Amino acid sequence: MASITRIECGARMSKAVVHGDTVYLAGIVASDTKLDITGQTKDVLAQIDDLLAKAGTDKSKLLRTNIWITDMKNFAAMNAVWDGWVSQGNTPARATVEAGLATPDYLVEIMVVAAK
Amino acid sequence: MASITRIECGARMSKAVVHGDTVYLAGIVASDTKLDITGQTKDVLAQIDDLLAKAGTDKSKLLRTNIWITDMKNFAAMNAVWDGWVSQGNTPARATVEAGLATPDYLVEIMVVAAK
Amino acid sequence: MASITRIECGARMSKAVVHGDTVYLAGIVASDTKLDITGQTKDVLAQIDDLLAKAGTDKSKLLRTNIWITDMKNFAAMNAVWDGWVSQGNTPARATVEAGLATPDYLVEIMVVAAK
Repeated sequence: MASITRIECGARMSKAVVHGDTVYLAGIVASDTKLDITGQTKDVLAQIDDLLAKAGTDKSKLLRTNIWITDMKNFAAMNAVWDGWVSQGNTPARATVEAGLATPDYLVEIMVVAAK
Repeated sequence: MASITRIECGARMSKAVVHGDTVYLAGIVASDTKLDITGQTKDVLAQIDDLLAKAGTDKSKLLRTNIWITDMKNFAAMNAVWDGWVSQGNTPARATVEAGLATPDYLVEIMVVAAK
Repeated sequence: MASITRIECGARMSKAVVHGDTVYLAGIVASDTKLDITGQTKDVLAQIDDLLAKAGTDKSKLLRTNIWITDMKNFAAMNAVWDGWVSQGNTPARATVEAGLATPDYLVEIMVVAAK
């Protein structure tokens, strides 16, 4: 039976859960919601880098990514940041759809699964 | 090669699929759609408890959770039920977004991955 | 540590990522967006068959499926194609919600996880 390790385990959710050699991150939103889509995407991906590091892995081991954006008009700007961030040769399976987020201030939310 | 066990395997989907020591549940909606958001969330989480038990596990081993609600005005009420249900010290990675569900009567749908 | 193999690995995403004996596919949309919901669903499922084959598996080993459709009025027509395609006795855990997709021409997007 594989071990379970929880990172930044709060009362509602954990920011990351490691099960054996699979790492599940929470849906991450920007810490600074005054930023535009470019800034929020950078903010989110920096948090993901940090959480992956805490889980003992990094973006070169991404397996699957779900992205929610509140308006598809922001798709190209989000992708421009994503394309510059993601590890070339190691891109994950990905899906992006449009959805409302917890507050109108959030423009993008990203949830990843990675290998350890 | 890890074994696959399917629970309540219907013609369209299974309610749960166990692969090795990972348990994938279907998106669960309320069995009684006349309930309000509080009642529907309790209904859904009771079904999840039951399915996790059939899979040989429980909510203390949740890894990842996706929640869809039809209106963010219900976010706080859903969270109130969630916070009282989830196993403290063992919270999963979670994301909640707003989306339309199969019928307008459904207010919330929850899909979890757990360890066995 | 389980190996990672990426299939059709592009600069933005991979079409499939194999981690140990778990296969993560990207969200797949129709290659021909002039098709109606029936045609687009068939188109998507044919691409999924092809990607699962490239990953060394098939639809009888589906574990989990997320479906996004742009309008729930298309739910029954999508399900009619799905029900005829999915491997009876081997159906995955599934959730379907309504969401906007990358362009208005896409009517359905499907993302699966399978065992190898």
